Formats: sequence, C-alpha cells, structure tokens
Amino acid sequence: MQRSDKRTADELRQVTMIKDYIIYPEGSVLIKMGNTVVLCNATVEEKVPRFLHGTGKGWVTAEYSLLPRSTAERNQREATKGKQTGRTQEIQRLIGRSLRSVVDLTALGEQSIIIDCDVLQADGGTRTASITASFVALALALDKILPENETEKFPLKDFLSAISVGIVNEKPLLDLCYIEDSSAEVDMNIVMTGSGQFVEVQGTGEEYTFSKEELAEMLALGEKGCQELIVKQKEILGKIAERVGK
Amino acid sequence: MQRSDKRTADELRQVTMIKDYIIYPEGSVLIKMGNTVVLCNATVEEKVPRFLHGTGKGWVTAEYSLLPRSTAERNQREATKGKQTGRTQEIQRLIGRSLRSVVDLTALGEQSIIIDCDVLQADGGTRTASITASFVALALALDKILPENETEKFPLKDFLSAISVGIVNEKPLLDLCYIEDSSAEVDMNIVMTGSGQFVEVQGTGEEYTFSKEELAEMLALGEKGCQELIVKQKEILGKIAERVGK
Amino acid sequence: MQRSDKRTADELRQVTMIKDYIIYPEGSVLIKMGNTVVLCNATVEEKVPRFLHGTGKGWVTAEYSLLPRSTAERNQREATKGKQTGRTQEIQRLIGRSLRSVVDLTALGEQSIIIDCDVLQADGGTRTASITASFVALALALDKILPENETEKFPLKDFLSAISVGIVNEKPLLDLCYIEDSSAEVDMNIVMTGSGQFVEVQGTGEEYTFSKEELAEMLALGEKGCQELIVKQKEILGKIAERVGK
Amino acid sequence: MQRSDKRTADELRQVTMIKDYIIYPEGSVLIKMGNTVVLCNATVEEKVPRFLHGTGKGWVTAEYSLLPRSTAERNQREATKGKQTGRTQEIQRLIGRSLRSVVDLTALGEQSIIIDCDVLQADGGTRTASITASFVALALALDKILPENETEKFPLKDFLSAISVGIVNEKPLLDLCYIEDSSAEVDMNIVMTGSGQFVEVQGTGEEYTFSKEELAEMLALGEKGCQELIVKQKEILGKIAERVGK
Amino acid sequence: MQRSDKRTADELRQVTMIKDYIIYPEGSVLIKMGNTVVLCNATVEEKVPRFLHGTGKGWVTAEYSLLPRSTAERNQREATKGKQTGRTQEIQRLIGRSLRSVVDLTALGEQSIIIDCDVLQADGGTRTASITASFVALALALDKILPENETEKFPLKDFLSAISVGIVNEKPLLDLCYIEDSSAEVDMNIVMTGSGQFVEVQGTGEEYTFSKEELAEMLALGEKGCQELIVKQKEILGKIAERVGK
Amino acid sequence: MQRSDKRTADELRQVTMIKDYIIYPEGSVLIKMGNTVVLCNATVEEKVPRFLHGTGKGWVTAEYSLLPRSTAERNQREATKGKQTGRTQEIQRLIGRSLRSVVDLTALGEQSIIIDCDVLQADGGTRTASITASFVALALALDKILPENETEKFPLKDFLSAISVGIVNEKPLLDLCYIEDSSAEVDMNIVMTGSGQFVEVQGTGEEYTFSKEELAEMLALGEKGCQELIVKQKEILGKIAERVGK
Repeated sequence: MQRSDKRTADELRQVTMIKDYIIYPEGSVLIKMGNTVVLCNATVEEKVPRFLHGTGKGWVTAEYSLLPRSTAERNQREATKGKQTGRTQEIQRLIGRSLRSVVDLTALGEQSIIIDCDVLQADGGTRTASITASFVALALALDKILPENETEKFPLKDFLSAISVGIVNEKPLLDLCYIEDSSAEVDMNIVMTGSGQFVEVQGTGEEYTFSKEELAEMLALGEKGCQELIVKQKEILGKIAERVGK
Repeated sequence: MQRSDKRTADELRQVTMIKDYIIYPEGSVLIKMGNTVVLCNATVEEKVPRFLHGTGKGWVTAEYSLLPRSTAERNQREATKGKQTGRTQEIQRLIGRSLRSVVDLTALGEQSIIIDCDVLQADGGTRTASITASFVALALALDKILPENETEKFPLKDFLSAISVGIVNEKPLLDLCYIEDSSAEVDMNIVMTGSGQFVEVQGTGEEYTFSKEELAEMLALGEKGCQELIVKQKEILGKIAERVGK
Repeated sequence: MQRSDKRTADELRQVTMIKDYIIYPEGSVLIKMGNTVVLCNATVEEKVPRFLHGTGKGWVTAEYSLLPRSTAERNQREATKGKQTGRTQEIQRLIGRSLRSVVDLTALGEQSIIIDCDVLQADGGTRTASITASFVALALALDKILPENETEKFPLKDFLSAISVGIVNEKPLLDLCYIEDSSAEVDMNIVMTGSGQFVEVQGTGEEYTFSKEELAEMLALGEKGCQELIVKQKEILGKIAERVGK
Repeated sequence: MQRSDKRTADELRQVTMIKDYIIYPEGSVLIKMGNTVVLCNATVEEKVPRFLHGTGKGWVTAEYSLLPRSTAERNQREATKGKQTGRTQEIQRLIGRSLRSVVDLTALGEQSIIIDCDVLQADGGTRTASITASFVALALALDKILPENETEKFPLKDFLSAISVGIVNEKPLLDLCYIEDSSAEVDMNIVMTGSGQFVEVQGTGEEYTFSKEELAEMLALGEKGCQELIVKQKEILGKIAERVGK
Repeated sequence: MQRSDKRTADELRQVTMIKDYIIYPEGSVLIKMGNTVVLCNATVEEKVPRFLHGTGKGWVTAEYSLLPRSTAERNQREATKGKQTGRTQEIQRLIGRSLRSVVDLTALGEQSIIIDCDVLQADGGTRTASITASFVALALALDKILPENETEKFPLKDFLSAISVGIVNEKPLLDLCYIEDSSAEVDMNIVMTGSGQFVEVQGTGEEYTFSKEELAEMLALGEKGCQELIVKQKEILGKIAERVGK
Repeated sequence: MQRSDKRTADELRQVTMIKDYIIYPEGSVLIKMGNTVVLCNATVEEKVPRFLHGTGKGWVTAEYSLLPRSTAERNQREATKGKQTGRTQEIQRLIGRSLRSVVDLTALGEQSIIIDCDVLQADGGTRTASITASFVALALALDKILPENETEKFPLKDFLSAISVGIVNEKPLLDLCYIEDSSAEVDMNIVMTGSGQFVEVQGTGEEYTFSKEELAEMLALGEKGCQELIVKQKEILGKIAERVGK
C-alpha cells in the first residue's frame, strides 16, 4: 500500500527551516515539514525559576500552542477557554525536557531561555518538528548572547532532533502526516542526539499493542530520521554548528 | 522632523497581502504593513449564537491574539495566564463590530464566520491591519461558500478598511509605527467603508487632549489611508471584488 | 418624532449628584441621570503600579460593575462567572484613561487613586455618567488628602465630563436613555475638558455607518452636553472647584 | 461600660427599610441598620435547578457581595479576583437556606426567586440585615407575581428575620456594630420566624469559648431583636403582610 | 422507630482512630466513625500569614476535601472543576476556627500548622469527625516539634471534639449517619472543649424550624457525644494527653 | 552499590492489593508497593463522551491526584490552586489510554468507566502502581455490572500492568523508589499486557541520554516486573481472572 504522498516507508517529508523569521527574538526559526508549519522563537530572560536561585545554573523551557485554524476543523483558542489542555501541557513539558538534555546549564549561567512554539499549520508531527526547530532557535540565541570570544564553553553539548514513527496497517512508517497518524495503531516519538543517544522514547498503542520486534523496527526508522534532520540543522546553522559540543 | 522610516506625514507603510496563506481555512490572508505581520483566517461554522436562533440571520465575530514574541519584549501567553487581557477583548470586539457593519447578516443566513487574527510581528497598527485583512479573508470565505450562481445577493454590502492616525510632537501623522505610537499624544483608529462612510472613530488622548482642528486633520488623514487600502484589497481579491455590494 | 421622555434632541436628562454618599471612601458621589444611578467611590492607596516605582509619579485607575439587577433582565454576577466581561474591561479602561488626561501625575506623587463605579440602576449612559461623577469623587478625595495650604499645585489640571450622543431614526440626539440606545444606528461617547478640548471620541456604527456631517452634528451635541455637566460639577464641588487648574 | 453609640445591651440600632428602591426588580428593598446599608433585589426566573425539574416545586436562592468600598479599607472586587471568597459563599448559602425555611416551595410552583444582596456600606451585621430585608423583597415579589385572587395559597408560611448577638468584654450584646464585632469573644447569628421558632443558630467562639448560660442569654437577646424586626417588616409590607401564612 | 443500625438515640457509632497512618506528616490520624472514614494529616510550616508577621503568634488552618468516590454517587473532583464548592470552603473554615479556639497561638510561636482532612468514605458527620481527628493530629504534631523539656507551655489549652445531632421524624438523635442526615428536619453541629464549653453551635432547619425545647435536647445530646469522643482522644494520645492544658 | 532497601536490581518492592477497600464504588482497590499507597476506585456511568454518542461503544478514563501530604514536603492542593498541574494531566491521560488498550469498547457498550486514582502516600512509581491497581478495579467493576451469564463477551481482552525502571549510577534498576527516582539518569515507564505486548514505553533522560543497549536492558527489566505484577492481579481477582480474554 502506498503512502498518501508517495513517500517510501523510511522517507522524511520535505523539510525547510527559515532562520530569523521574526525580527525581535534572540533566535527565530520557521520550520516546514510537508504541510506542518511551526514558528519557534527563543527569548532570553535574565532570571531563573526559584529553585535555581543562587546555583549559577540556567534554565531552558518551552511553550506550545496550536493557532485555532492550524487544523482542518477550528479548535477553540486556549486563551478563550481560560486554560491549556492536557495535550498542550504534555507537549511543552516534552520540548523543554528534551532541549535541556543537551544544554550545559552551568555553562549557560543564571539566565533562562524560553522557546515559544506556535503551530501555524498542523499536518502531523508538530511536537517533533517543534523540538527540531527549537534546537536551531536555541543555538541562534546562544550564539547571539555568547559571542565566540567571550565564552570558553558553548552551552550546547550536542545536536538534538526529533521525529515521529508509527505503525499503520501493520507497517512501520517514518514521519507520519495527519492522515497516517489518525489511523495509526502505534504512535511513537523519538528524540535523539547527534551522537546517536536517545533522549526520549515515547511509544503508545492506540487501542492497540506492539511487539518487541515492532519496537525495534520503529527505533531504527526513528534513528534514521533524526540523523537526517541533524544534517539539515547543520546546514541552516552554518558556522554556528561548529560551536556545538565545544 | 523626519519620521523614523522617512515617510511623509500622510504616507502609508509598504502593504502586502498574501491570500490562501494557510491551507485549511475558508479564507486566509497574511498582511504585512511595514514590520507589522498579522495572519487572518476565516472559519465558517454552521451555527449562530443563541440570540439569533430562528431569525434567519448569520453572525460575524473575531478573535485577536499577540504571539508571545511578536513584540520587542516577550509578553506572557494568555493561555498560560488563563485569561485574555482587557486590551485583547477590546480589540476583538472592535474587529467583529466593524466587519458586521458591511455584512448583510440576512443574506448570510444562519451561519457564523469567525475570523482569527494572530499577530506574528507587531510594529504598531495591529488592530487596524487586522480589520483590513479580515475583510479580505471574509470575502474569500464568502466567495467560497456562496458560488456566484447560487446566491442572488452577496452578503458584503461595501468594502471596509482601517488605519491608525495620531499626533506626534504636535504633528498629525498617518499609520503610526510602534516607536511613533508609543510617544504619540493622541492615538486614533478609523474604520471606513468603500463609499467613504465612517464605521468607527476612536480617538484617545494619552495624558493629553486634542482640539476640533486636530480632530479634523486626523480624520482627513485617516480617510486618505483607508481609501488607499481599499485599492489594495481590490487588487488582491481580483474578480471577487466585483461581487461586493451586489 | 418625540423622545420617550419628551426631551428635545439637545437636552440632557435631569442630573443630580450627591456627595459623601458613603462614609468610608476619601471621595464618594452618587450620580442620577434620569433613571441611571451610579455610585462612584474614590480610594487613596499608598502604592503605585510597578512601572511607576521610583518615578515620583502617581496613578489613577477605575473599576466598573453593573449590579445584577441594575438592568431590566438580571445579568449574571461577574464574581460568580469568575471573570469580567469584555464590555466591563473596556469601560473601566476608558474611565481610568479619561481621568488621567486631566491629572498631573507628578503633582499627585507616588500614590494611587482607584475609583469604583458601581451601577445601581442602568438606563443608558452608565459609562459617561461614571466618568462625570468619578471626576467629582476624585476632586473630593484630592482635596481631602491635600489640604489647601500643604500643596503648591493641585493635581487636577482641568474639569472633565462625558456624555453619550447617537443617531436614532437618522436624527442626532444627546444623552440617550436605554430605549433610544438600543435602537440607535450610531452610538458615540464623548469625553471633554472644561476648556473644550477632546479627551476621547468613540463613535460606533451598529450595523450602520455615518457621514462626516453626522459626525460633526454629534460632536456639537456632545460638546454642549459636556459643558452643561461641568456647570453641575462646579455647583456640587463648591469651593473645591476653585482649586482645579491651580 | 457603655456601647459606642450609647445603646443599651438589648437595643437594636435604628432600622429603616425603603421598598421599591430600584425600579426593575420584582421586589426591591434598601435596608439601613445604623451605618450598615444593604440593597436587596428579588428576581423571578421561569426556571428551576435541574434537581427540581418536573417536581412542581420552586426554588429560592441568594447572592451576596460587598461593594469594594463598603468597608473602611477597600477590599478587592471578587470579579477581579475571579472568584468568591469562602466568607461570601458561606453567607449566601445561609441567606438562601433561611429564606427557604418559610417558603412553601410547592405553592410557589416551578419558578425560582433569586435575591441579590449588595452591601453598599458595612458596619457589622450585614448577613442578618440581608436576611431581614430579603424576606421583605421576597414578599413584594411574590405579591407581584401572584395577585391575591389568582392563588389559593400564598407561598410564605411565616415571617422571617435575623439578628446578630455576641459577647463583648464578657457581656452579651444585641446587634453588634463593626467595632463591637471585631472585639467580640463570641459572635452569634440567629434567624427566627414570626411564631418564635428557630431557623438558624450559629454561635462561634473567636479564639474563645462560651458556657451554656452565656448561650441562653444570647438566645434571649436574639429572640427579642428578631421579633422587633418583624414588627418593622409588617409596617413596610402593609396589606401584603396579611397574606403571609395564609 | 428504630435507627437503621439499631443504635439508641443517644449512642455514638463505633469510633476508631489510627495514629501515624501516613509516614510523612508531623501528625497523621485515620478516623473511622461507622462507615465514615477521614484521613487527617498535620503539616508544620515555618511561616505565618502576612497579618501575623512579626507578632510572635502562630496560626492553625485546615483544608477539607471529599474524594470523588467517597460518596454513593461520584462527585466531580474539585481540581477538575477548578474551584472549591461553597460547602467545602464553609467546612474548612469551621475546622480551622474550631481548632484555633483551643490553641495558644502565642505559645506556638511564628509557625503554621495546616491540617488536611481528606474524606475517603462519607456516611454523614464528616466535618465533625474531621475536627475530632484533626485535634489528635495537631497534638501529635505539636508533641513532635516541641519535645517536653524544650517548652514551658504546651500550646493546647484544652481538648476539642465535635459531633452532629439532629431531629429526625421529630426525634432528637446523636451522630447521624447519611441516611438519617438526608431526612433530618434539623441538623446541628456542636464543637466542645474538654471542660464542657461550647466552641461552635450550628443548628440549621432544613425547610423546617425548631423550638427552644428541641434546641435544648440537641445540645444535651451533643455534649454527651463530645465528652465520649474526648475519652477516645485521650486513649489514642496516651502520655501526650497529659501535656494538654499544661 | 546496594539499593536503599537491599533489593536486587531486578526485584519488585513488596506488593499488596486490597479489594473492596471503599464500599460505594463498583470496583475499589488499595495498592501498596513498598511505601507507595494508591486508592483506585472505578465508577460506572450511563453516558459516554459526545464523540461516542450513537456509536454503541463505551469509554474508560481516569483521574489522578496526590493528597497534599502524600509526599515528604506538603504540595498545594490542586482544588485550591484552581487547576491541575501538567504532571497530573499527563499521568491521568496515560492511565486512561493504557487501560483502553485492553478494553473491548464495543463489548462494553455505551457506558463509561472512570477510575479515580488517589495517592495516599507517594514513594515513587505512583503512576505505574495506579495502572496496575486500576486494571483490577476495572475488572471488579465489569464483573459486577456484567454477570457471567448475561454477556457473551467480557470486555477485557487481556491483563495489563505497569512498572517503572531506570538507570541510577549507570545501573539499570527495576521499580524505583523515590530516592532512587530522584537521582536517576533515565526514568522509564513500561505498560504491558498479559501476552507480553507493549502498550506504552516512555523513556526519558533527565539532563542525560541513553544508548540502545541501556534501552534494551531497561525493557527486559520492565517485562519481568510487569509479568510478576500480573501474577498478583490474578491472585487478587480469583475467579474473575478467568473471564479476562474470554
């Protein structure tokens, strides 16, 4: 059975990242993965959460939101409802936690970076696209506030990207679009570093379960996708990419 | 004294409107006025507010939001705060009310159109840019759901655009950017129709007052700006523009 | 066509203001304009909003509320709903902004005055009645905390009043009562100073638009109404009126 | 030791009730007990809470609120805080429950009466003044919607009034004003019917306790106060008073 | 007429208290009164509410909650609703106020004790069971933080217990279970000290009223029940009981 | 290095489940895993969410809450804060989703089962203990509402249990207690069926990453733990266990 957009099972959608998309943020990236479009803006703030006061360590966090008409059916604005959904909170916790796994919070020092991920158009994989683009926005912001000669250690220890995989009609597929995701039996999000370590592995059976073999196949697909995305990150970051891990 | 971007006192900023920017909405327009960028998406819903049940009349309403980093300093996400600010509510009431002044709600029939105005980048005049682009998104949506041969009357009675004017250093200026707006003594928003009628006139002294003569000068500037914007609306709408008022 | 209460088009309703209506506030005024009754109480607080800390400048703000049964149909209590409506927030922002246009915030010094406007009975024009009475409550409070010999400059630069005008059945009318307001084609609120300068001009077509000529007629009616209200303010303030602008 | 306003221990403050104070409600009463001023408005609604659907029985409920400057120090508006305090909820539950004890809900039929008690000026005893005046507002509303010849049974079974008593400096006192209440060792609210039955007895030691003898003395004072208030209620109700219990 | 569980009118249900039920709190007690089961945990915090800063006095407060399925029909979780009901707030204010009547806040010093009362299973009398068990949890916590030789005065001045009484089918009964409570004509909660003083007396007619004689009978039953509960408290506290009042 | 409670790396803590702990719910289980204690109550409701109306399918969902003093430091009650934390929402979504993977929603029919998981004492692994006990509560409730002779198909397709694993000091461990969890480099929750299929795999590096080999070791430990827990579930369910999968 063919995929709706004729991709092979292990093929990413077309990926584009535009940097400096918005003029105000310290780091700004618009990512397009097929029809999924997310704007990721990094803001540096000279304060840290209370539990870090006086520790010399910084913090990285994220917020995520779907624009009301980013989806085929309009979804109610969370500001109107007066609260964020459980899904929103789960996603923004995931993005922040993933980013922190490659940040040297001590090298960052007592300041915070908050990444706003606003989905303009959603066609599956918005949380993983957010992580991939947020890493670039974070690198841009750190490069801006920490010019090369002023810091001994760049606070990014490694690259970081994320991708969704899943099982659709009993077949493992890479980078599900919405129509695939909504009929998937298993949905998995994988976050990896440039050196091939896992950061997050979240596999979920949707009224379905999966075997060890299926898990292994999905992990392999995810690793392939993550590494391809890191190649894209290096292209868009150019010379800044060389500072990562130094 | 020169304006920061060298415009003359009665000159609009560069205006661009991109239609069908997002693929899902019935009408979608991205407007850029200088550095102000707003995405306006129109959604058609097959229901009306309770007070219109059974009246045969439709409804048009709007929601407005600043993305957190659309501004020079990050502003807290309203979904996180759990409520919309008074400013947000005031603006979205203005947008909805203005649009309804040129809509024939009876010709629309019992359905609602909701326009989401999300500001990606704010450099002054976001509420008036929202009105100008929302009119176009509304026209696109109505054209889509009411093909020309199926309806006798198109529900748009006239064109509608809006612009800000103000008094800065005692001098009336058209289309204030943020730096002008923040030092303005008087700030006025004007909403007009294609036939030159006023829909809204909101002039506000900021710890300052203004005379009848200053009011007249601002109204004249506003009229000029609104008519120039309507020319742009007609360009972007093409053949659909001919249906307005028919 | 005659007005429901037989007034001429340019005639205010009967106006009464009772000062010191409540015993605790620094300034307290009950205003009756026809059947509209609003209680305006001024409170002095020894603190200012954060953005004014250390500037030596004070602040004036307002809160507005309709009692549940101030209207013909009971409206739900905002404390029960858990939030203020957009209309309430828009009105209280207008009242505060208008008052600040005639206050010398530096002469006031680092303290805040908050005016609570609670509508006991609503028959149109509650926001403009609130502004007119709040000015008197503010003057009473300032006179109380700044005895004549202790201050060189009284922080009120000018008088301030407000009135509604509108177009009903194509005819401009002054000071609309509820039944006129609900059928008005255009509704305009005008806030003016004692010296005849405009502070706010807010004209709104209700599914209707208005011409330049109609705007001019409404402004003339509004000016007449505002100046008559300032005569009433001077009567009720007595000797305190002489301190304004000194 | 003398009371601050020279009353004897068993003396009520001066009581006045003004009926039809607001023009819109079905029943409206302004009560003044000394410096305590409360506006009680009764609204009839043609619906009942879900648990009464189809039972043929009606409902009576109440809402209570302090205006922000009804007190010596301004208290924050509950609509601004976004929720009612525990104190407010406790009081409005008490008022509603007390009123229902003398209402024949079956005779009322499937409709609701909601009483809004808004305190304009608070000097102690606002909850008991609210009950006393709410009874009158309720009687006025019932008389209006149930003209004498149209109903066989008037839904009020008996009169109802309430008063506070307390122990101050070890001495039982009737009808405490704020200054007495704030130094009281024991504070008790008593709600009684015209036939001398108890409806509510709420005695509370404030970091203090009380004996059986003290309880008996407070109950006797409360009974005296309640009966005197019922005389006032009969005066203000005039001919309507004769319908109660019939 | 016999009671559902064959008790006599003046007989308590079977009472058990288990101390140190949870390992973390400074004081922890699980109380069972018949089928009513409440867990009361005392937490000591090194801070006091703002109004006590610098006074040298401490504070005692309580929170109360029903688990969703502590009742025959599931009740919605308050955290999901986003607010506590009026009933919950009324009960937790009662528990805190009652406890403070026997605490010497000055001997406690500037620290707070908060008692969490979580109802695992509700069969009537949950608020009074909470008070009775909270007193024991409070004593355990105070004994833990104030070893006998380190303090001159133990901050508990007296014992404290509470019980419900009511009139069911015109007959006064002690310690109502849910089925009795839901058909009671009068419901009364009584809080007493070890020396027989009243702390709270809250009697409520449920669409019913009560006479002086009925009140006296209920008070007598309540006193009997409270004293029996204090015997149980002394048993469970063992040697700590001797510190109370010293 | 030894574990704090001397367990081997692949050893579960002592597990006990008490069924019918609370008398009202259709299914009630108290689980103790070491010092972690969670009460899981299942409620059957005769309604389904809107998206299932008319589909003939049922629904299973869960709510989760920590009692304030279930932890070493008291955490603020969510009902007082007015909202659930992101963590709470994430956990209750996980519990509901996991349970649904083994429920035949069509065999259940149009009714809902809601499982309330209230943590009385938290020492790590509360979400996995909740899943394990919720499965038993669900089985008890289904057995009660679907007596063996009345239904052809029991709606539980398989057993379901969950356990946490992690990497502490570079060593994979099964069933982390709180002190281990708080210093873990990687934390993973695994949900499995009786037939050894995965339902959820959620592995998270805490400012740390993990290799494929470490992932494999953790999965193996998790599988062992889950199967041991299913043995316990069968014991406690007795004859009801035989209905699962039939």
